[in-house]
Amino acid sequence: MGIPEKVINRLTLYHFILEDLRENEKYISSTVIANLLKIDNSQVRKDLKYIENVSNNDIGGKCRVGYEVKALKKAIEQSLGFKKTKDVFIVGAGNLGSALAKYDSFKDYGLNVLAMFDKDKTKIGTVINGREVFDISRVGNLASRLGVEMAILTVPREFAQGTANYLAGAGLKYIWNFTTCILDVPKDVKVWNENLIGSFLQFTNSDKEE
Amino acid sequence: MGIPEKVINRLTLYHFILEDLRENEKYISSTVIANLLKIDNSQVRKDLKYIENVSNNDIGGKCRVGYEVKALKKAIEQSLGFKKTKDVFIVGAGNLGSALAKYDSFKDYGLNVLAMFDKDKTKIGTVINGREVFDISRVGNLASRLGVEMAILTVPREFAQGTANYLAGAGLKYIWNFTTCILDVPKDVKVWNENLIGSFLQFTNSDKEE
Repeated sequence: MGIPEKVINRLTLYHFILEDLRENEKYISSTVIANLLKIDNSQVRKDLKYIENVSNNDIGGKCRVGYEVKALKKAIEQSLGFKKTKDVFIVGAGNLGSALAKYDSFKDYGLNVLAMFDKDKTKIGTVINGREVFDISRVGNLASRLGVEMAILTVPREFAQGTANYLAGAGLKYIWNFTTCILDVPKDVKVWNENLIGSFLQFTNSDKEE
Repeated sequence: MGIPEKVINRLTLYHFILEDLRENEKYISSTVIANLLKIDNSQVRKDLKYIENVSNNDIGGKCRVGYEVKALKKAIEQSLGFKKTKDVFIVGAGNLGSALAKYDSFKDYGLNVLAMFDKDKTKIGTVINGREVFDISRVGNLASRLGVEMAILTVPREFAQGTANYLAGAGLKYIWNFTTCILDVPKDVKVWNENLIGSFLQFTNSDKEE
Protein backbone atom coordinates (compact mmCIF):
# COMPACT_ATOMS: atom_id res chain seq x y z
CA MET A 1 0.00 0.00 0.00
CA GLY A 2 1.86 3.08 -1.21
CA ILE A 3 1.25 6.77 -0.77
CA PRO A 4 -0.30 8.30 -3.91
CA GLU A 5 2.24 10.14 -6.09
CA LYS A 6 0.44 13.46 -5.90
CA VAL A 7 0.44 13.26 -2.12
CA ILE A 8 4.17 12.47 -2.03
CA ASN A 9 4.78 15.51 -4.22
CA ARG A 10 2.77 17.81 -1.95
CA LEU A 11 4.26 16.39 1.26
CA THR A 12 7.73 17.16 -0.07
CA LEU A 13 6.69 20.74 -0.74
CA TYR A 14 5.24 21.02 2.80
CA HIS A 15 8.57 19.78 4.12
CA PHE A 16 10.43 22.48 2.16
CA ILE A 17 8.22 25.06 3.89
CA LEU A 18 8.89 23.59 7.35
CA GLU A 19 12.63 23.58 6.65
CA ASP A 20 12.51 27.31 6.00
CA LEU A 21 10.80 28.22 9.28
CA ARG A 22 12.78 29.90 12.01
CA GLU A 23 13.74 27.98 15.16
CA ASN A 24 11.17 29.75 17.33
CA GLU A 25 8.21 28.92 15.10
CA LYS A 26 6.77 25.92 16.86
CA TYR A 27 3.39 25.77 15.17
CA ILE A 28 2.13 26.21 11.63
CA SER A 29 -1.42 26.36 10.34
CA SER A 30 -2.69 24.57 7.27
CA THR A 31 -3.78 27.99 5.96
CA VAL A 32 -0.20 29.26 5.88
CA ILE A 33 0.89 26.19 3.91
CA ALA A 34 -2.12 26.37 1.59
CA ASN A 35 -1.60 30.07 0.85
CA LEU A 36 2.08 29.64 0.04
CA LEU A 37 1.32 26.84 -2.40
CA LYS A 38 -1.90 28.43 -3.64
CA ILE A 39 -3.87 25.26 -3.05
CA ASP A 40 -6.97 24.52 -1.00
CA ASN A 41 -6.74 24.53 2.76
CA SER A 42 -8.92 21.41 2.82
CA GLN A 43 -6.37 19.61 0.63
CA VAL A 44 -3.57 20.39 3.07
CA ARG A 45 -5.63 19.26 6.05
CA LYS A 46 -6.53 16.05 4.25
CA ASP A 47 -2.89 15.30 3.39
CA LEU A 48 -1.77 15.97 6.94
CA LYS A 49 -4.52 13.81 8.40
CA TYR A 50 -3.38 11.07 6.04
CA ILE A 51 0.25 11.37 7.05
CA GLU A 52 -0.72 11.37 10.71
CA ASN A 53 -2.41 8.03 10.20
CA VAL A 54 0.35 6.51 8.06
CA SER A 55 3.17 7.56 10.39
CA ASN A 56 1.18 7.02 13.58
CA ASN A 57 2.42 10.32 15.01
CA ASP A 58 0.34 12.91 16.79
CA ILE A 59 1.02 16.09 14.82
CA GLY A 60 -1.45 18.34 16.59
CA GLY A 61 -3.55 20.45 14.27
CA LYS A 62 -5.86 21.73 16.94
CA CYS A 63 -8.01 24.69 16.13
CA ARG A 64 -6.24 28.07 16.46
CA VAL A 65 -2.97 26.43 17.52
CA GLY A 66 -1.91 24.67 14.34
CA TYR A 67 0.35 21.74 13.66
CA GLU A 68 3.48 21.08 15.66
CA VAL A 69 6.33 21.80 13.28
CA LYS A 70 8.73 19.22 14.72
CA ALA A 71 6.18 16.42 14.86
CA LEU A 72 4.92 17.23 11.38
CA LYS A 73 8.42 17.16 9.90
CA LYS A 74 9.10 13.84 11.58
CA ALA A 75 5.81 12.40 10.34
CA ILE A 76 6.60 13.38 6.73
CA GLU A 77 10.17 12.11 6.99
CA GLN A 78 9.08 8.76 8.38
CA SER A 79 6.28 8.28 5.89
CA LEU A 80 8.40 9.09 2.85
CA GLY A 81 11.53 7.36 4.09
CA PHE A 82 13.88 10.36 3.82
CA LYS A 83 16.34 8.94 6.21
CA LYS A 84 16.84 5.62 4.50
CA THR A 85 19.78 6.77 2.40
CA LYS A 86 19.86 5.48 -1.15
CA ASP A 87 23.22 5.38 -2.89
CA VAL A 88 23.12 6.21 -6.58
CA PHE A 89 25.40 6.68 -9.55
CA ILE A 90 25.12 9.45 -12.10
CA VAL A 91 25.70 8.10 -15.60
CA GLY A 92 26.63 10.87 -18.01
CA ALA A 93 28.97 13.54 -16.67
CA GLY A 94 27.80 16.30 -19.02
CA ASN A 95 26.06 19.54 -18.06
CA LEU A 96 22.99 18.06 -16.49
CA GLY A 97 24.83 15.21 -14.75
CA SER A 98 27.32 17.66 -13.30
CA ALA A 99 24.55 20.01 -12.19
CA LEU A 100 22.81 17.14 -10.38
CA ALA A 101 26.10 16.09 -8.75
CA LYS A 102 26.32 19.63 -7.40
CA TYR A 103 22.71 19.68 -6.20
CA ASP A 104 23.35 19.42 -2.49
CA SER A 105 19.69 19.23 -1.45
CA PHE A 106 19.59 15.62 -2.63
CA LYS A 107 21.59 14.45 0.36
CA ASP A 108 19.13 16.01 2.85
CA TYR A 109 16.41 13.83 1.37
CA GLY A 110 18.27 10.56 1.35
CA LEU A 111 19.82 10.59 -2.09
CA ASN A 112 23.55 10.03 -1.95
CA VAL A 113 25.51 10.30 -5.21
CA LEU A 114 28.51 8.01 -4.82
CA ALA A 115 30.20 8.31 -8.19
CA MET A 116 29.75 9.34 -11.81
CA PHE A 117 30.35 7.53 -15.06
CA ASP A 118 31.10 8.55 -18.63
CA LYS A 119 32.78 7.17 -21.73
CA ASP A 120 34.53 10.44 -22.55
CA LYS A 121 38.24 9.97 -21.79
CA THR A 122 38.67 13.67 -21.02
CA LYS A 123 36.11 13.43 -18.23
CA ILE A 124 37.23 10.14 -16.70
CA GLY A 125 39.32 10.74 -13.60
CA THR A 126 37.99 14.23 -12.99
CA VAL A 127 36.15 14.98 -9.77
CA ILE A 128 32.84 16.87 -9.69
CA ASN A 129 31.75 18.13 -6.29
CA GLY A 130 33.66 15.32 -4.63
CA ARG A 131 32.46 12.57 -6.97
CA GLU A 132 35.00 10.89 -9.21
CA VAL A 133 34.06 10.21 -12.82
CA PHE A 134 34.79 6.59 -13.76
CA ASP A 135 34.89 4.82 -17.11
CA ILE A 136 31.40 3.49 -17.84
CA SER A 137 32.88 0.00 -18.29
CA ARG A 138 33.45 -0.12 -14.54
CA VAL A 139 29.84 0.55 -13.56
CA GLY A 140 28.83 -3.10 -13.03
CA ASN A 141 31.83 -3.92 -10.90
CA LEU A 142 31.46 -0.84 -8.72
CA ALA A 143 27.70 -1.28 -8.44
CA SER A 144 28.01 -4.77 -7.04
CA ARG A 145 30.94 -3.88 -4.77
CA LEU A 146 29.13 -0.84 -3.34
CA GLY A 147 25.64 -2.30 -3.43
CA VAL A 148 24.31 0.43 -5.72
CA GLU A 149 21.08 -0.34 -7.59
CA MET A 150 20.04 3.05 -8.92
CA ALA A 151 21.46 5.14 -11.75
CA ILE A 152 20.54 8.68 -12.74
CA LEU A 153 20.73 8.71 -16.53
CA THR A 154 21.93 12.00 -18.01
CA VAL A 155 23.61 10.94 -21.26
CA PRO A 156 22.64 12.54 -24.60
CA ARG A 157 19.39 11.18 -25.97
CA GLU A 158 21.03 9.21 -28.78
CA PHE A 159 23.06 7.17 -26.30
CA ALA A 160 20.25 6.66 -23.81
CA GLN A 161 18.94 3.28 -24.97
CA GLY A 162 22.41 1.79 -25.44
CA THR A 163 23.48 2.98 -22.01
CA ALA A 164 20.27 1.65 -20.44
CA ASN A 165 20.94 -1.77 -21.99
CA TYR A 166 24.41 -1.67 -20.55
CA LEU A 167 23.20 -0.64 -17.08
CA ALA A 168 20.57 -3.38 -17.06
CA GLY A 169 23.21 -5.90 -18.07
CA ALA A 170 25.47 -4.61 -15.32
CA GLY A 171 22.81 -5.37 -12.71
CA LEU A 172 21.36 -1.90 -12.03
CA LYS A 173 17.66 -2.16 -11.10
CA TYR A 174 16.46 1.46 -11.07
CA ILE A 175 17.00 4.07 -13.74
CA TRP A 176 15.98 7.66 -13.09
CA ASN A 177 15.80 8.80 -16.69
CA PHE A 178 16.47 12.47 -17.44
CA THR A 179 16.63 11.96 -21.21
CA THR A 180 13.71 12.30 -23.63
CA CYS A 181 14.24 8.72 -24.82
CA ILE A 182 11.70 6.17 -23.61
CA LEU A 183 13.84 3.23 -22.52
CA ASP A 184 13.06 -0.34 -23.44
CA VAL A 185 14.38 -2.34 -20.47
CA PRO A 186 13.88 -5.82 -18.97
CA LYS A 187 10.95 -6.41 -16.63
CA ASP A 188 13.04 -6.33 -13.46
CA VAL A 189 14.41 -2.87 -14.19
CA LYS A 190 12.32 0.10 -13.11
CA VAL A 191 12.44 3.39 -14.96
CA TRP A 192 11.26 6.72 -13.65
CA ASN A 193 10.97 9.28 -16.43
CA GLU A 194 11.90 12.75 -15.26
CA ASN A 195 9.78 14.51 -17.80
CA LEU A 196 10.81 18.19 -17.87
CA ILE A 197 8.95 18.74 -21.13
CA GLY A 198 5.77 17.31 -19.64
CA SER A 199 6.28 19.49 -16.61
CA PHE A 200 6.61 22.59 -18.78
CA LEU A 201 3.49 21.67 -20.75
CA GLN A 202 1.58 21.07 -17.52
CA PHE A 203 2.60 24.54 -16.37
CA THR A 204 1.60 26.27 -19.61
CA ASN A 205 -1.62 24.27 -19.89
CA SER A 206 -2.62 24.89 -16.27
CA ASP A 207 -3.68 28.39 -17.29
CA LYS A 208 -6.51 27.05 -19.34
CA GLU A 209 -8.15 25.54 -16.28
CA GLU A 210 -9.39 28.89 -15.08
CA MET B 1 -11.36 23.02 -19.24
CA GLY B 2 -7.82 21.75 -19.09
CA ILE B 3 -6.25 18.38 -19.74
CA PRO B 4 -5.47 16.60 -16.43
CA GLU B 5 -1.80 16.87 -15.44
CA LYS B 6 -1.25 13.13 -15.39
CA VAL B 7 -2.59 12.87 -18.92
CA ILE B 8 -0.32 15.69 -20.13
CA ASN B 9 2.61 13.85 -18.61
CA ARG B 10 1.75 10.58 -20.35
CA LEU B 11 0.96 12.23 -23.69
CA THR B 12 4.41 13.81 -23.66
CA LEU B 13 5.97 10.40 -23.09
CA TYR B 14 3.91 8.93 -25.96
CA HIS B 15 5.22 11.74 -28.15
CA PHE B 16 8.82 10.87 -27.23
CA ILE B 17 8.14 7.32 -28.40
CA LEU B 18 6.64 8.51 -31.69
CA GLU B 19 9.63 10.80 -32.26
CA ASP B 20 11.94 7.80 -32.04
CA LEU B 21 10.15 5.71 -34.65
CA ARG B 22 11.73 5.21 -38.04
CA GLU B 23 10.29 6.98 -41.08
CA ASN B 24 8.74 3.80 -42.47
CA GLU B 25 6.77 2.99 -39.32
CA LYS B 26 3.37 4.36 -40.18
CA TYR B 27 1.33 2.67 -37.46
CA ILE B 28 1.80 1.96 -33.78
CA SER B 29 -0.34 -0.10 -31.43
CA SER B 30 -1.32 0.92 -27.93
CA THR B 31 0.32 -2.31 -26.72
CA VAL B 32 3.75 -1.21 -27.95
CA ILE B 33 3.38 2.10 -26.13
CA ALA B 34 2.01 0.45 -22.98
CA ASN B 35 4.81 -2.12 -22.86
CA LEU B 36 7.55 0.48 -23.27
CA LEU B 37 6.14 2.54 -20.43
CA LYS B 38 5.09 -0.50 -18.39
CA ILE B 39 1.58 0.82 -17.95
CA ASP B 40 -1.84 -0.64 -18.76
CA ASN B 41 -2.89 -0.92 -22.38
CA SER B 42 -6.34 0.28 -21.38
CA GLN B 43 -4.80 3.46 -19.96
CA VAL B 44 -3.07 4.22 -23.26
CA ARG B 45 -6.23 3.58 -25.25
CA LYS B 46 -8.20 5.84 -22.92
CA ASP B 47 -5.66 8.67 -23.22
CA LEU B 48 -5.60 8.40 -26.99
CA LYS B 49 -9.38 8.37 -27.22
CA TYR B 50 -9.38 11.47 -25.07
CA ILE B 51 -6.85 13.26 -27.26
CA GLU B 52 -8.76 12.27 -30.38
CA ASN B 53 -11.82 14.03 -28.98
CA VAL B 54 -9.96 17.09 -27.71
CA SER B 55 -8.04 17.63 -30.92
CA ASN B 56 -10.84 16.56 -33.21
CA ASN B 57 -8.45 14.47 -35.32
CA ASP B 58 -9.04 10.95 -36.60
CA ILE B 59 -6.03 9.05 -35.32
CA GLY B 60 -7.10 5.59 -36.43
CA GLY B 61 -6.67 2.93 -33.78
CA LYS B 62 -8.49 0.22 -35.67
CA CYS B 63 -8.04 -3.35 -34.52
CA ARG B 64 -4.84 -5.03 -35.78
CA VAL B 65 -3.77 -1.88 -37.66
CA GLY B 66 -3.01 0.51 -34.84
CA TYR B 67 -2.81 4.25 -34.62
CA GLU B 68 -1.54 6.41 -37.45
CA VAL B 69 1.76 7.79 -36.22
CA LYS B 70 1.55 11.09 -38.09
CA ALA B 71 -2.03 11.81 -37.08
CA LEU B 72 -1.36 10.81 -33.49
CA LYS B 73 1.66 13.09 -33.26
CA LYS B 74 -0.33 15.96 -34.66
CA ALA B 75 -3.20 15.33 -32.27
CA ILE B 76 -0.86 15.41 -29.27
CA GLU B 77 0.94 18.51 -30.54
CA GLN B 78 -2.29 20.38 -31.11
CA SER B 79 -3.81 19.40 -27.80
CA LEU B 80 -0.79 20.34 -25.73
CA GLY B 81 0.10 23.44 -27.72
CA PHE B 82 3.70 22.44 -28.57
CA LYS B 83 3.92 24.76 -31.46
CA LYS B 84 2.90 27.91 -29.66
CA THR B 85 6.43 28.94 -28.78
CA LYS B 86 6.88 30.43 -25.33
CA ASP B 87 9.88 32.69 -24.77
CA VAL B 88 11.49 32.36 -21.37
CA PHE B 89 14.44 33.67 -19.39
CA ILE B 90 16.69 31.56 -17.20
CA VAL B 91 17.47 33.36 -13.95
CA GLY B 92 20.57 31.95 -12.32
CA ALA B 93 23.45 31.04 -14.63
CA GLY B 94 24.95 28.39 -12.37
CA ASN B 95 25.27 24.67 -13.06
CA LEU B 96 21.60 23.87 -13.37
CA GLY B 97 20.74 27.05 -15.28
CA SER B 98 23.55 26.39 -17.73
CA ALA B 99 22.50 22.76 -18.14
CA LEU B 100 18.94 23.85 -18.93
CA ALA B 101 20.25 26.43 -21.42
CA LYS B 102 22.03 23.57 -23.16
CA TYR B 103 18.98 21.29 -23.09
CA ASP B 104 18.09 21.45 -26.77
CA SER B 105 14.92 19.34 -26.52
CA PHE B 106 13.12 22.30 -24.98
CA LYS B 107 12.93 24.08 -28.32
CA ASP B 108 11.21 21.13 -30.01
CA TYR B 109 8.42 21.42 -27.50
CA GLY B 110 7.87 25.16 -27.72
CA LEU B 111 10.16 26.40 -24.99
CA ASN B 112 12.54 29.05 -26.27
CA VAL B 113 15.22 30.33 -23.91
CA LEU B 114 15.96 33.89 -25.00
CA ALA B 115 18.49 35.01 -22.42
CA MET B 116 19.96 34.32 -18.99
CA PHE B 117 20.40 36.51 -15.93
CA ASP B 118 22.71 36.50 -12.95
CA LYS B 119 24.15 38.93 -10.43
CA ASP B 120 27.66 37.45 -10.58
CA LYS B 121 29.88 39.92 -12.46
CA THR B 122 32.12 37.10 -13.75
CA LYS B 123 29.15 35.49 -15.49
CA ILE B 124 27.55 38.61 -16.92
CA GLY B 125 28.46 39.02 -20.59
CA THR B 126 29.33 35.37 -21.12
CA VAL B 127 27.35 33.33 -23.63
CA ILE B 128 25.97 29.86 -22.81
CA ASN B 129 24.79 27.85 -25.79
CA GLY B 130 24.01 31.04 -27.66
CA ARG B 131 22.28 32.78 -24.76
CA GLU B 132 23.90 35.88 -23.32
CA VAL B 133 24.00 36.27 -19.54
CA PHE B 134 22.72 39.71 -18.51
CA ASP B 135 22.84 41.55 -15.20
CA ILE B 136 19.71 40.66 -13.21
CA SER B 137 18.90 44.37 -12.89
CA ARG B 138 18.03 44.38 -16.60
CA VAL B 139 15.43 41.61 -16.40
CA GLY B 140 12.38 43.89 -16.15
CA ASN B 141 13.40 46.07 -19.04
CA LEU B 142 14.24 43.14 -21.31
CA ALA B 143 11.10 41.24 -20.31
CA SER B 144 8.82 44.09 -21.32
CA ARG B 145 10.76 44.83 -24.51
CA LEU B 146 10.76 41.19 -25.61
CA GLY B 147 7.33 40.31 -24.21
CA VAL B 148 8.70 37.59 -21.93
CA GLU B 149 6.46 36.53 -19.04
CA MET B 150 8.13 33.34 -17.81
CA ALA B 151 11.33 32.81 -15.86
CA ILE B 152 13.07 29.56 -15.02
CA LEU B 153 14.46 30.06 -11.53
CA THR B 154 17.77 28.29 -10.89
CA VAL B 155 19.46 30.48 -8.29
CA PRO B 156 20.76 28.99 -5.02
CA ARG B 157 18.01 28.31 -2.50
CA GLU B 158 19.00 31.17 -0.18
CA PHE B 159 18.48 33.73 -2.96
CA ALA B 160 15.28 32.21 -4.31
CA GLN B 161 12.70 34.30 -2.42
CA GLY B 162 14.56 37.56 -2.95
CA THR B 163 14.92 36.86 -6.66
CA ALA B 164 11.25 35.87 -6.93
CA ASN B 165 10.24 39.17 -5.31
CA TYR B 166 12.41 40.97 -7.82
CA LEU B 167 10.98 39.06 -10.79
CA ALA B 168 7.41 39.70 -9.64
CA GLY B 169 8.22 43.39 -9.27
CA ALA B 170 9.74 43.38 -12.75
CA GLY B 171 6.47 42.12 -14.23
CA LEU B 172 7.21 38.43 -14.78
CA LYS B 173 4.03 36.35 -14.43
CA TYR B 174 5.24 32.74 -14.46
CA ILE B 175 8.07 31.27 -12.42
CA TRP B 176 9.21 27.71 -13.09
CA ASN B 177 10.90 27.11 -9.76
CA PHE B 178 13.82 24.64 -9.70
CA THR B 179 14.87 25.55 -6.16
CA THR B 180 13.70 23.84 -2.97
CA CYS B 181 12.37 27.14 -1.63
CA ILE B 182 8.60 27.56 -1.65
CA LEU B 183 8.11 31.05 -3.05
CA ASP B 184 5.72 33.55 -1.54
CA VAL B 185 4.56 35.60 -4.53
CA PRO B 186 1.65 37.93 -5.38
CA LYS B 187 -1.63 36.44 -6.55
CA ASP B 188 -1.08 37.25 -10.22
CA VAL B 189 2.22 35.36 -10.39
CA LYS B 190 2.05 31.64 -11.04
CA VAL B 191 4.68 29.27 -9.70
CA TRP B 192 5.34 25.76 -10.91
CA ASN B 193 7.54 23.83 -8.48
CA GLU B 194 9.88 21.48 -10.29
CA ASN B 195 10.18 19.11 -7.40
CA LEU B 196 13.14 16.77 -8.07
CA ILE B 197 13.15 15.60 -4.47
CA GLY B 198 9.47 14.71 -4.68
CA SER B 199 10.14 12.92 -7.92
CA PHE B 200 12.91 10.87 -6.34
CA LEU B 201 10.70 10.00 -3.38
CA GLN B 202 7.89 8.99 -5.72
CA PHE B 203 10.31 6.68 -7.51
CA THR B 204 11.62 5.08 -4.34
CA ASN B 205 8.16 4.82 -2.80
CA SER B 206 6.61 3.33 -5.94
CA ASP B 207 8.22 0.03 -5.01
CA LYS B 208 5.96 -0.35 -2.01
CA GLU B 209 2.89 -0.46 -4.18
CA GLU B 210 3.56 -3.99 -5.30
